[in-house]
Amino acid sequence: MQPDFEKAGGLIPAIAQDAQSGKVLMLAWVNEFAWKETIRTGWAHYWSRSRQKLWKKGESSGHTQRIIEIRIDCDADAILYLVEQKGAACHEGYASCFFRSLGTGGDEPKIMEPKIQL
Amino acid sequence: MQPDFEKAGGLIPAIAQDAQSGKVLMLAWVNEFAWKETIRTGWAHYWSRSRQKLWKKGESSGHTQRIIEIRIDCDADAILYLVEQKGAACHEGYASCFFRSLGTGGDEPKIMEPKIQL
Repeated sequence: MQPDFEKAGGLIPAIAQDAQSGKVLMLAWVNEFAWKETIRTGWAHYWSRSRQKLWKKGESSGHTQRIIEIRIDCDADAILYLVEQKGAACHEGYASCFFRSLGTGGDEPKIMEPKIQL
Repeated sequence: MQPDFEKAGGLIPAIAQDAQSGKVLMLAWVNEFAWKETIRTGWAHYWSRSRQKLWKKGESSGHTQRIIEIRIDCDADAILYLVEQKGAACHEGYASCFFRSLGTGGDEPKIMEPKIQL
């Protein structure tokens, strides 16, 4: 069973979750090329939609994600990377890109975690 | 801060995570209509791409998702619903749609959890 890139128009969403804490770290996109690089190397790779290029997470920041396990969903059009995250997943310096809470939706955003000291 | 539906072409991915266990339950899609219904009602709503209609999770199965908290990512183009899941999130009867493991990617899929007895 492999991701169904064809059905999804070439790109599927990939969730990165910290394998130890269960924290959802980020959501990014994977095409077949990024998928194969992830499997070949054991490091999370994505496809940057804005830069239209392969992106090894942490290639410039050093904040890499080692793959512990990969899950695939029932429709094979989303994947879950369980990772060992080095440093901050978010480019803003937070452990998770989902550091802002909206409460149950009507609220002003509230920052839920400190920046990581590296 | 609200999701940036315009940037994303109208639809953004929404991750549902069990607020208690931290288990990632599913990934689906949200447009502005589904987003507003989620906030208005306190129950997770999505936009069904295949049926092209608003979809209250559990409306036919009873496997609803009560919203505990909503997180938004740094780019405002992905959201995370922390939910109280009733029954199985997956239409195949598993707690999570991500019930299949691919190991580190080269392996045959392996089912990681039992079906839920309801």
